[in-house]
Amino acid sequence: MTKNFSKLFQHGTLATLVPGLFDGTFPVGDLLKKGDTGIGTAAGLGGEMVVLDGTAYLVKSDGQIDILPADTLVPFATVHFDNSDQVGERVVDLAENDLDEKIFSKRSLQNIFFAVKITGQFKHVKTRAVAAQTRPYPTLSQVADKQAVFEENESQGTVIGYFSPELFQGMASAGFHLHYLNDDHSLGGHLLDFKVSEGILTIQPFASVEQHFPLDNDEFMGHDFELGEMDSQIRHSES
Amino acid sequence: MTKNFSKLFQHGTLATLVPGLFDGTFPVGDLLKKGDTGIGTAAGLGGEMVVLDGTAYLVKSDGQIDILPADTLVPFATVHFDNSDQVGERVVDLAENDLDEKIFSKRSLQNIFFAVKITGQFKHVKTRAVAAQTRPYPTLSQVADKQAVFEENESQGTVIGYFSPELFQGMASAGFHLHYLNDDHSLGGHLLDFKVSEGILTIQPFASVEQHFPLDNDEFMGHDFELGEMDSQIRHSES
Repeated sequence: MTKNFSKLFQHGTLATLVPGLFDGTFPVGDLLKKGDTGIGTAAGLGGEMVVLDGTAYLVKSDGQIDILPADTLVPFATVHFDNSDQVGERVVDLAENDLDEKIFSKRSLQNIFFAVKITGQFKHVKTRAVAAQTRPYPTLSQVADKQAVFEENESQGTVIGYFSPELFQGMASAGFHLHYLNDDHSLGGHLLDFKVSEGILTIQPFASVEQHFPLDNDEFMGHDFELGEMDSQIRHSES
Repeated sequence: MTKNFSKLFQHGTLATLVPGLFDGTFPVGDLLKKGDTGIGTAAGLGGEMVVLDGTAYLVKSDGQIDILPADTLVPFATVHFDNSDQVGERVVDLAENDLDEKIFSKRSLQNIFFAVKITGQFKHVKTRAVAAQTRPYPTLSQVADKQAVFEENESQGTVIGYFSPELFQGMASAGFHLHYLNDDHSLGGHLLDFKVSEGILTIQPFASVEQHFPLDNDEFMGHDFELGEMDSQIRHSES
């Protein structure tokens, strides 16, 4: 299999989750053929997915972290092939608020998709994981209001995720969307805050993004999306 | 080369054209490796592109239609591989206003990208072609206000283009975006109105859309897009 390091692959859109369409529609096994690294969620929003080195981990709201089998169906996930030839940049005492400045002060990247990876020693991380929902599904922002929060000091781990340009708000979450997994796989989730003591920051820009749709999911195909409120719903849910 | 009939490929975004970023950034030769059928524009907005059977035609504002060489750079184009195994539907006396009803009354397709092709006898077609611009480039809607309009009765030809879901307004033109080329290649352009006397309507749904960006174009990479006014600008320019 040829790995295309300059292409991002996404199944499902964030907009599909907003009104509560949480059914799994794409097998993890197929997803891992599209990339060995990435983020996503599970059917019913049953946790926060982190894909590292070709393994899909699911951080659940009870704190448990599962490895997802190939036949698990997920509603929304974004993956790419990590280009290990890329040279990262050493960062020291980098806080979440510094990330914009650190990345955009040197390069114009705001109009394209790129991956963000930070490996190293974290002084502090704060993550969340949403709880699995059952039908009738609530909306995404209702779920976001009921989430488990995890914090850890002095951990070794990896921040992984993406920057998406403003134009693609709704397809993805515009701006940074980052997840975390510590090295012993005991804590992770959607990243709310972090501070790196010392680590390596790697940026992988993509020439293209492939958006894949669940054509065989009747609920998605027939849904009448109300996009007028989508932006504020996403900002509420993904911040 | 394996043809993937369920993938749409696009270079550049419509949003890039809105403020007047009209430089050519992708060679026609590379584009034709991504699809044999589609639509687009030329550098400087120098006409309306129609790709049929692996040939890229450019309808210019003086009415002339050129075949674009492989090394021509274009700023915005959308292509796919036409699946000739698909069975089309015979349509009689179909007007542009009937297209929505004709397509969406039978199938839920509003949330995905699909190609629209109509071949046959047209009672009437009305097209436009924008005129080539030079630097300093105007905005897309300023160009749209100065366009050549062509009309033809009783022609044989092909309507080709795409439907894009509302969520992707800005990446593409949400709704239908159709071009036309008659069979003797003497008239074509961005389709403003048409009536089919008798023809075949073929719909080709896509499981995925690949959006490709001009990473080596500094003007695009560094531009600060004002997305707040984009929707109305696109509606003004593409209607």
